[in-house]
Amino acid sequence: MYQVVKGDESEIATILDRLEKRPVFLFCVGNTLTAEVPGITVAGANPELIKYTPPADVELLYYGKCKVIPFPPATPDGKPTPALITYTALRLTKVPFFVVDSGLMDKPDVPVIEVHAVTGKNIAEEDAMSVENAKKAFEKAVELGKQVSRASDVVVVGESIPAGTTTAGAVLKALGLECKVSSSMPENPVDIKMKVIEKAVSRLSGDETPLEVVAKVGDPVILTVAGIACGSEKPVIFAGGTQMVAVANVAERLGSVEGLIATTKYVAEDENADLTQSPLPVIAVDPMLGKSSKAGLRAYAEGFVKEGVGAGAATLLAYMRGISPDEFLKEVERDYERIIESK
Amino acid sequence: MYQVVKGDESEIATILDRLEKRPVFLFCVGNTLTAEVPGITVAGANPELIKYTPPADVELLYYGKCKVIPFPPATPDGKPTPALITYTALRLTKVPFFVVDSGLMDKPDVPVIEVHAVTGKNIAEEDAMSVENAKKAFEKAVELGKQVSRASDVVVVGESIPAGTTTAGAVLKALGLECKVSSSMPENPVDIKMKVIEKAVSRLSGDETPLEVVAKVGDPVILTVAGIACGSEKPVIFAGGTQMVAVANVAERLGSVEGLIATTKYVAEDENADLTQSPLPVIAVDPMLGKSSKAGLRAYAEGFVKEGVGAGAATLLAYMRGISPDEFLKEVERDYERIIESK
Repeated sequence: MYQVVKGDESEIATILDRLEKRPVFLFCVGNTLTAEVPGITVAGANPELIKYTPPADVELLYYGKCKVIPFPPATPDGKPTPALITYTALRLTKVPFFVVDSGLMDKPDVPVIEVHAVTGKNIAEEDAMSVENAKKAFEKAVELGKQVSRASDVVVVGESIPAGTTTAGAVLKALGLECKVSSSMPENPVDIKMKVIEKAVSRLSGDETPLEVVAKVGDPVILTVAGIACGSEKPVIFAGGTQMVAVANVAERLGSVEGLIATTKYVAEDENADLTQSPLPVIAVDPMLGKSSKAGLRAYAEGFVKEGVGAGAATLLAYMRGISPDEFLKEVERDYERIIESK
Repeated sequence: MYQVVKGDESEIATILDRLEKRPVFLFCVGNTLTAEVPGITVAGANPELIKYTPPADVELLYYGKCKVIPFPPATPDGKPTPALITYTALRLTKVPFFVVDSGLMDKPDVPVIEVHAVTGKNIAEEDAMSVENAKKAFEKAVELGKQVSRASDVVVVGESIPAGTTTAGAVLKALGLECKVSSSMPENPVDIKMKVIEKAVSRLSGDETPLEVVAKVGDPVILTVAGIACGSEKPVIFAGGTQMVAVANVAERLGSVEGLIATTKYVAEDENADLTQSPLPVIAVDPMLGKSSKAGLRAYAEGFVKEGVGAGAATLLAYMRGISPDEFLKEVERDYERIIESK
């Protein structure tokens, strides 16, 4: 059902068993103006649309369609958002989920939990947010994590933030870890990202606390997810790739965290993604999109998009609830036809 | 543990058993400018402070102290907010709770779920909100109710909105029901309230849908709680007095609702509160405050404050979790000393 990338198999199995009980999914969605650096992200059909991707993603989860933009988020060449896969899994399993405003520029037309996170500034130019803002939002996220964990057996947290792999890379580098950055593109614009990361990290003195690191070179999604994880009284499944590696490192330094990272095998197989930098176990799930009859889904197996909006963990949830990989792929394709092809 | 005011005992017991499993509490807090009518409410130490009562109430639930104002909400003569009782129950039971912004004028410093509810206007002068606003917030509340119910066995919804008994009275009257209005004061300003209600209802044609009634003469808390109840896939405990009678009537007309109203015996014994207008079962819980050594708490048994912020249902929760009435009273008194007397 999944591959172990890192960690102890029985420890991992114990945490994942909780997906069969009462999981709650949270989606931390936000923006960083770092996404406005030309060429840094394809999480949007064109540069003007990029900022709408996070709210549109969560509208898709709620309604199977988007409202802030008239069609689902996609790359410029039409690869659809991974929210589609998560939508299918949540639709089939009816697992509860909530959206957390982690610094959105534009609000979605769904219920949203506010923790006073602010949109991240462009880390190439200036600090993402003030340390004071970061503290305020972090504390609120801790409270939220506590409450959500009391209503569940495991808290699964996914994300949507264009250019989030770049801010994650900067946080990893600032924490003294090796910094590789995955991407929604097979031709990963590593040079552009690395330049931004270098510029951001060069502003640091090296004496920053982990929270200050996030405030200066991170983004509000990393901040919020880390806060939720620190507040949770139950294990946390960090649902994502390299971004969650950064989050897990931050959370580990700010509190005591039990959990693991769950991502797709497309990230795990990406040579630009170094999941072993995670302080927590890591697993990879195969959504079998390489076998799809739909070119837009097969593209995931060819290195496009790869992960996001908790797609890997959502796929695992579906598998653990007794939906076979073949069945699940069929259901994803059905939603693809209804949501993407009919647009 | 409770008295049955209305309804079938075994049906009630079946719903309440769920409090022993996994309840989730929601607090729908908001404002109506109807509270600015002189003399209509004492939910605040003075008229300028009234609008801060709802955010301060939920800050008290989270932190055991307030932030938007430097001290806990109280009546002008110092009777403390019922949020104190709810705080004690949640502290002891560790049951998860969330705050829903149901039209707040001022935001609390806690995580808050937004459903796009707007502050209610003064119903003596104009419609509380546009029908379009009401529909938008109602739909979002329905979605929220669905998700929360999937994370719980029973959804308990409390409220805080100064002058809420007046808007509730107007909704009851507009729906063709008998309209009595309870109050936080033993000298209930019935004349002032009735004048406002008359003026509000006189604007109606009589052809309004239930949602239009709430938009025109109700408030955003009634709207939001009704939406949550309609979206819930589990039974709902409406945690309050006459306001919840109005909500239950609205919810019943807008959807199919299973549940009951749980309030304090202080409301049930109030001759100005007609709980039998509820379409759902009603129970009354005794927090034993008449036995308290603290004058501020004994006042509840003398007709002051009486209920609010889900205090009755929270007391029942504590009892059902094995805390005896005497123990619970002691814990409430301990919190009273720390939170109220030390201020």
